[in-house]
Amino acid sequence: MIRGKFITLEGGEGVGKTTNLDFIRNYLQQSGIQFLVTREPGGTPIGEAIRRLVIDSQGISAQAELLLMFAARAQHIEEVIEPALTEGIWVVCDRFTDASYAYQGGGRGIDPKVIRFLEGWLQKGLEPDLTLLFDAPVEIGLDRARSRGSLDRFETEMPAFFSRVRETYRDLARQWPHRIKLLDATQSLVDVQAEIAKHLDELRHT
Amino acid sequence: MIRGKFITLEGGEGVGKTTNLDFIRNYLQQSGIQFLVTREPGGTPIGEAIRRLVIDSQGISAQAELLLMFAARAQHIEEVIEPALTEGIWVVCDRFTDASYAYQGGGRGIDPKVIRFLEGWLQKGLEPDLTLLFDAPVEIGLDRARSRGSLDRFETEMPAFFSRVRETYRDLARQWPHRIKLLDATQSLVDVQAEIAKHLDELRHT
Ligand SMILES: Nc1ncnc2c1ncn2[C@@H]1O[C@H](COP(=O)(O)OP(=O)(O)O)[C@@H](O)[C@H]1O
Ligand SMILES: Nc1ncnc2c1ncn2[C@@H]1O[C@H](COP(=O)(O)OP(=O)(O)O)[C@@H](O)[C@H]1O
Ligand SMILES: [Mg+2]
Ligand SMILES: [Mg+2]
Repeated sequence: MIRGKFITLEGGEGVGKTTNLDFIRNYLQQSGIQFLVTREPGGTPIGEAIRRLVIDSQGISAQAELLLMFAARAQHIEEVIEPALTEGIWVVCDRFTDASYAYQGGGRGIDPKVIRFLEGWLQKGLEPDLTLLFDAPVEIGLDRARSRGSLDRFETEMPAFFSRVRETYRDLARQWPHRIKLLDATQSLVDVQAEIAKHLDELRHT
Repeated sequence: MIRGKFITLEGGEGVGKTTNLDFIRNYLQQSGIQFLVTREPGGTPIGEAIRRLVIDSQGISAQAELLLMFAARAQHIEEVIEPALTEGIWVVCDRFTDASYAYQGGGRGIDPKVIRFLEGWLQKGLEPDLTLLFDAPVEIGLDRARSRGSLDRFETEMPAFFSRVRETYRDLARQWPHRIKLLDATQSLVDVQAEIAKHLDELRHT
């Protein structure tokens, strides 16, 4: 059994992660690839309960937030991601561990060593085969997120918070150029999706 | 301002932690000490939500369980325990980090190094001044817990699980004899409480 590929979507608020999931779904369907689509925090009943807690609770500490994210992730890996990949099913995930580095690390100032420790302990070598990083100036993403509806606890952070998130994501892309593909999310959807297709084509043939 | 003392109650199911809280409350009141009583997991609105999740969710992974316990603890330390101790208020807590070593470490087989890492990161030297460890053979505690009412996800574990929990607690007591006081919880409540009073007397005079 050939192991499935693991694809993650990353980026700040309103950059187009969830929107482009539909395009990726169609692409994989038309390629005859078996896949599932999931998200973090979430992806399991316990993970979705943690998601509600972490997105809605006011006054949650940065450390508690990080630990909740990794609790949801531990359950997600064990219950969903690993079993699927092992069975040859591709997994497409809306956010994963890079988001912990960007939001809890860059955004909230948690020492990245702590994130690295938890990542090493839980993932034991599991990492995405491809990470699509949607990148856009903070204001563009926030305007789009605002037009999408009411804002949650993360979306109402200060612009400086989102600048740190964006810079951390860009640093990660420089650090892992083979895995993380930076997409200019200010382009039209058609142009963004042409780039996504190119990366998926490459992934299918590796 | 003299820092408050931090007292924790530990032990398996049904050994008498919660029952003896009332005695400790009375003791501290009569001694004119300002104090608060709290518990883990829990102690804050977020922590109590995590408590419900971790106690009720079926199929939760050992790793997720540990991370949820520490998420609740992070919030508890920041929001309740540290502010109180700093203001000179004593804190009495029904379970704390020793329970992570005993239940998630001994019981579920999580590497204690991971627990030590999280403890060091979150607690930065915060540790109980006194830990009362209620010790009884597993069957006695379980019989008492059963007679108390319906059993939760922890209380329905196998006897071998509770034996590992008890042994881990006893190991901790050997490792930290100055902090952890082992109480024979098979004694009558009056006798147990005489021992508790002795330890509290000592603590007041250190
Ligand atoms: N490239 C794009 N050009 C214009 N609008 C976009 C683009 N990508 C996404 N949007 C719009 O921006 C909003 C936020 O997109 P969404 O996919 O929900 O972002 P995310 O999931 O990254 O937070 C949606 O209304 C979406 O239609
Ligand atoms: N020393 C004791 N002797 C007899 N019964 C006890 C003793 N300590 C506790 N109990 C009873 O055992 C039951 C469980 O006690 P509890 O304080 O709820 O345990 P825990 O909080 O440690 O799980 C209660 O019904 C309590 O009255
Ligand atoms: Mg989205
Ligand atoms: Mg109790």
